[in-house]
Amino acid sequence: MDLSAYIRDIEDFPKPGVVFKDITPLLKDPKALKAATELLLHYTANMRVDKVVGVDSRGFIFAPLLAQKMGAGFIPVRKPGKLPFNTLSESYELEYGQEILEIHSDAIEKGDKVLVHDDVLATGGTAKAVCKLVERLGGEVVQCNFLIHLTFLQGAEKLNGYPIKSLLRY
Amino acid sequence: MDLSAYIRDIEDFPKPGVVFKDITPLLKDPKALKAATELLLHYTANMRVDKVVGVDSRGFIFAPLLAQKMGAGFIPVRKPGKLPFNTLSESYELEYGQEILEIHSDAIEKGDKVLVHDDVLATGGTAKAVCKLVERLGGEVVQCNFLIHLTFLQGAEKLNGYPIKSLLRY
Repeated sequence: MDLSAYIRDIEDFPKPGVVFKDITPLLKDPKALKAATELLLHYTANMRVDKVVGVDSRGFIFAPLLAQKMGAGFIPVRKPGKLPFNTLSESYELEYGQEILEIHSDAIEKGDKVLVHDDVLATGGTAKAVCKLVERLGGEVVQCNFLIHLTFLQGAEKLNGYPIKSLLRY
Repeated sequence: MDLSAYIRDIEDFPKPGVVFKDITPLLKDPKALKAATELLLHYTANMRVDKVVGVDSRGFIFAPLLAQKMGAGFIPVRKPGKLPFNTLSESYELEYGQEILEIHSDAIEKGDKVLVHDDVLATGGTAKAVCKLVERLGGEVVQCNFLIHLTFLQGAEKLNGYPIKSLLRY
């Protein structure tokens, strides 16, 4: 199944000059949704995974699905002020300004094997910050996986040392 | 399995006087995550469901899971400016001010049977707006289901006419 047929290019979103990869046609199609889930699961076949971390908010779409299929727990990483319990936070640089992400302090146990999932790997700043949060809580990142990898933004270099998998590369 | 044991009360979140129902302990526990999924699926057993609509962002956690298990597609409803394609929007009143939600104009086809899912049913304003969006696109809401129903906020009255199911009631 050619999943790239279910990704829609949206020009000038969210700002002029950017071509946004819209995954909603894939999500809407039952066969494509199932195929994408199975391919992502294939990347962690035979691996021990205790927790799947999904990034707010499109990372929430597949991470719980993967967690449930693997018998793992799901952990949300969110924008500041959204998680109600005690949190750890990590900030990272964007093109203009700074972004902050939070995780609950009781989300990961020491020695947990952790899969980090998000919809898109762009510059890698988000995923790198998530990996740091996991490690600060004593977890081990066993893989970062994505639906889409925008290779021209060189996020893989920022995630040097972490195994990376993605369904579609541009 | 007593799922209420996996819901954590957080006092004064997001503002003083509110007791927030934190679902992250449930999400983190593989057995509780699986049990919650199976119970939600039970509510739509033997029903035809073409699309599962999940509300940004905690509704994204279970809606794709339910969609995938039912052979349906997943449709995100989001805050303004987040969906990249043509959208329909619906606004509703909050205690102070107004909230707006958007859906892609191509998300639902005429005659689609639609399950609306969110984590919490509070005043019902959000779910009602989602039902209106679905109906404006020609879909039929066959059920609204939730992890948690805060019955004292009387959201069920606002959703009068729609079948409602929830795992836990307070």
